[in-house]
Amino acid sequence: MLYTIQSIAEAVGGTAHGDVQLTVSGAAEPGDANANDLAMAMAPKYADTLADGAARAAIMWEGADWRSFGLTAAITVSRPRLAMSGVTAMLDAGQGWETQAIHPSVVIDPTAVIGKAVSIGPYVSIGAHARIGDRSILGAHVVIGPDADMGPEAIIRDHVSIGARVRIGARFRAQSGARIGADGFSYVTPDVSGVEKARETLGEESETQSQSWLRIHSLGAVAIGDDVEIGANSTVDNGTIRDTVIGDGTKLDNLVHVGHNTRVGRDCLLCGLTGVSGSVEIGDSVVLGGQTGVADNLFIGDRVITGGGTKVLSNVPAGRVLLGYPGVKMNTHIEMYKALRRLPRSLRDLAALRKAVFKSQAND
Amino acid sequence: MLYTIQSIAEAVGGTAHGDVQLTVSGAAEPGDANANDLAMAMAPKYADTLADGAARAAIMWEGADWRSFGLTAAITVSRPRLAMSGVTAMLDAGQGWETQAIHPSVVIDPTAVIGKAVSIGPYVSIGAHARIGDRSILGAHVVIGPDADMGPEAIIRDHVSIGARVRIGARFRAQSGARIGADGFSYVTPDVSGVEKARETLGEESETQSQSWLRIHSLGAVAIGDDVEIGANSTVDNGTIRDTVIGDGTKLDNLVHVGHNTRVGRDCLLCGLTGVSGSVEIGDSVVLGGQTGVADNLFIGDRVITGGGTKVLSNVPAGRVLLGYPGVKMNTHIEMYKALRRLPRSLRDLAALRKAVFKSQAND
Amino acid sequence: MLYTIQSIAEAVGGTAHGDVQLTVSGAAEPGDANANDLAMAMAPKYADTLADGAARAAIMWEGADWRSFGLTAAITVSRPRLAMSGVTAMLDAGQGWETQAIHPSVVIDPTAVIGKAVSIGPYVSIGAHARIGDRSILGAHVVIGPDADMGPEAIIRDHVSIGARVRIGARFRAQSGARIGADGFSYVTPDVSGVEKARETLGEESETQSQSWLRIHSLGAVAIGDDVEIGANSTVDNGTIRDTVIGDGTKLDNLVHVGHNTRVGRDCLLCGLTGVSGSVEIGDSVVLGGQTGVADNLFIGDRVITGGGTKVLSNVPAGRVLLGYPGVKMNTHIEMYKALRRLPRSLRDLAALRKAVFKSQAND
Repeated sequence: MLYTIQSIAEAVGGTAHGDVQLTVSGAAEPGDANANDLAMAMAPKYADTLADGAARAAIMWEGADWRSFGLTAAITVSRPRLAMSGVTAMLDAGQGWETQAIHPSVVIDPTAVIGKAVSIGPYVSIGAHARIGDRSILGAHVVIGPDADMGPEAIIRDHVSIGARVRIGARFRAQSGARIGADGFSYVTPDVSGVEKARETLGEESETQSQSWLRIHSLGAVAIGDDVEIGANSTVDNGTIRDTVIGDGTKLDNLVHVGHNTRVGRDCLLCGLTGVSGSVEIGDSVVLGGQTGVADNLFIGDRVITGGGTKVLSNVPAGRVLLGYPGVKMNTHIEMYKALRRLPRSLRDLAALRKAVFKSQAND
Repeated sequence: MLYTIQSIAEAVGGTAHGDVQLTVSGAAEPGDANANDLAMAMAPKYADTLADGAARAAIMWEGADWRSFGLTAAITVSRPRLAMSGVTAMLDAGQGWETQAIHPSVVIDPTAVIGKAVSIGPYVSIGAHARIGDRSILGAHVVIGPDADMGPEAIIRDHVSIGARVRIGARFRAQSGARIGADGFSYVTPDVSGVEKARETLGEESETQSQSWLRIHSLGAVAIGDDVEIGANSTVDNGTIRDTVIGDGTKLDNLVHVGHNTRVGRDCLLCGLTGVSGSVEIGDSVVLGGQTGVADNLFIGDRVITGGGTKVLSNVPAGRVLLGYPGVKMNTHIEMYKALRRLPRSLRDLAALRKAVFKSQAND
Repeated sequence: MLYTIQSIAEAVGGTAHGDVQLTVSGAAEPGDANANDLAMAMAPKYADTLADGAARAAIMWEGADWRSFGLTAAITVSRPRLAMSGVTAMLDAGQGWETQAIHPSVVIDPTAVIGKAVSIGPYVSIGAHARIGDRSILGAHVVIGPDADMGPEAIIRDHVSIGARVRIGARFRAQSGARIGADGFSYVTPDVSGVEKARETLGEESETQSQSWLRIHSLGAVAIGDDVEIGANSTVDNGTIRDTVIGDGTKLDNLVHVGHNTRVGRDCLLCGLTGVSGSVEIGDSVVLGGQTGVADNLFIGDRVITGGGTKVLSNVPAGRVLLGYPGVKMNTHIEMYKALRRLPRSLRDLAALRKAVFKSQAND
């Protein structure tokens, strides 16, 4: 498909310059671009490589002297990273599931309700009384459980599982292999267990008797808001009695785990391999860096940010930026870490000082 | 389905009070309950919200003054968390695969042996000479490899892979996307590699020559005991020569990895995103908190408990409670961590002391 | 299948001894071996258990006195671990997908190009203009997106997803549930976000206004070299404008995540649950231990090795061996850690010293 420079500029809220009717069919890094690509030259360091490619048009920062790079046309934008959103949405070629047809191989329960203009790929299974919203796209091998309720315009890639009774809002996106509505990981021993005792005693030796685990089933499901995205092979567990909740606008990266009963607020980002235990309350606009861990039953306030690898072992007030294991305020972490770096030398200083003092006192 | 208060009380070993023939169809948190729900009011703090809902019956702690909450009936139990197991098992509505039928879309090798009263969902593939035990339930898209041997009453959700030659006991449960019997991650270089050298030299610079990795194939499979549960998208690798082993009653949470040749004992819990390397020996009743990591070739004794994020880098004797990276006894960790928190101030104290002593000595 | 001791010795570059025409059908640990197994007695400690089994032949270290163990035949090898590669490749019984047939249930776009002698299992879906190389083996439920291009001799287990436009070289191997070509995790807020500010200010409190995340779509795909292996349920994301790259000979373990735009070099090993963020450059022959994390936009030089759980938060020069959070040179980590272990006692020493000095000064 071809797009004029003018139409792209309008879509991203930028300004078109030069031959605004010039057309492009794709985007490329400046050094790799061919004559039909729009070069992504969002900052001077990228524009410097335009000469290595063959782009005739580029998207550039506000005030860029685009003619000096030998271009025929350009789009300038005030917030380049924001413009990336518009440009890439426009040029996204998709995964091939956008057929507006239902593949003959599917197994759809006769009581399921399929919206208008829905695309459904091969081998999809949809359970009894499930509802698929209008204009949704389901890739191959998607499984939708009975009584699941999906809003309009979902884009679900292949091999995704949506469990029974899961409720999802509008414009849901899921990458391949996401699992929504797995059973919660919840067990109980007939008598008080070693874990319960270790929590009470803060880590004395664990007890001697051995017990088996009895399963606590998940009667709740998962409730997901509008504009949520779930990454590849991520998992969100069902709640025990009520639903596990993911708020509007929240995005989960790949291989993220959200435990049973947890409530994640609006507009959060949970980066790759983050694990949130059960019964955690997470506020709005929270960003958890990659491999963050959150222990169970904690409260994390709005706008909290954790650096990669942070292990959150206690409640976190709103607005805090955390790092470390256990996670502490980033400034505190840096100060502690600098002290630790100096520690081997400081302990030598201490030893020397002790020697000096006690020798001096001995001499007194 | 409707259940009388009497029948639920009997199932959970509790005592029924009031109108014991009252029926409920589900469970709910006290504040969310409608008139057909059994309210889960297991402790006074939960019971306080009964007034916000419309429950006529609740399950409560022993000795609760249930009438004072305006209820018509109640069940009292001596260990509320244990009662949750019985109540939730009774009220679990399942995932819709319990059809006692074999979907016509399945591909089952004619030499496979399917037990009695087995339910098999759409698009299931079962290999040659595989055996599925009686009364098992297989969700959509399950793949069972050739010569796999499964005990009775398995409940396997959609998209699970069971590799060739895997053996599993009775009452197995697997959540969506679990992978049992992936090839082990095992390679060798023609000459001694940088990793082997780094282990020997404890971390001197790694060597300069570059080598390719040759694959060590997995000739073993996985042997799983009775009453084992595997979480969504978790992976258990085949052993190299013998089987990787998961003992009776052990439960894996979501996104857990167990490496080749590892043996996990009985009644263990491995929480979300835990990774156990190859050739590890784990005892019985071990609990590994979320995101625990265990280095290869280690021994972990019975009843060991690790806190979330613990990285186990050396053998652990039975009964120990660990935390940290590297994992140490929890008490030791707390003591070290408290000292680290004080360290920046302590180093200032040390500097002041040095100044005082050396100035004082200079003045002597 | 039966193999003579002579043929196995030739395949692994070892020396056959005794009755070299003796045949074996499998391999076993010495203590478990029956009369038809080749016992893996690669070191004296393993050979000592030969008497517990019934093996007539074993593979042993160079110079082993094989007759003294009562064997009929033996193979001796100079690098036993290397010999494991040859023996296990020879005896691998596979997963049952090697049928050289295309299952009738598959959905293959008529424009897809399928090579010669390809095996394709049930329920496989292959998109428009995709290309499958000669002698490839695709297990059940594999999904290949449109315009994907796969080299010869791929072995892809069940439930693997290969996204649109992904390019893969020769001899690719993927374990069940691997996801190649998920969308990158990349979002932008209309105004500068809390994360961007936290990076600039190194962790002051995050901002108060709330914003929604706009999606940056992935126009790039994934480019994978020759001889690459991807573990079960691992994920490799598409690049934003150009491709994410995995170099020749690199192996990913299970549950590994590689973010958008990242370039991994040749002959690397990424162990289980490792997460590499976006736009990272990783050199050749790098080994990342289990649960390693790498922050975004970093550079990791050739031959770097990280211990399990290392969190890489800054660039790493070639050849370095890292451990810890944040990752530092292993020697530095050990020194810091030893000092930390002594710290509680050292702080008591410091307190005693202060008391002594200030008391002594007060007395002066």
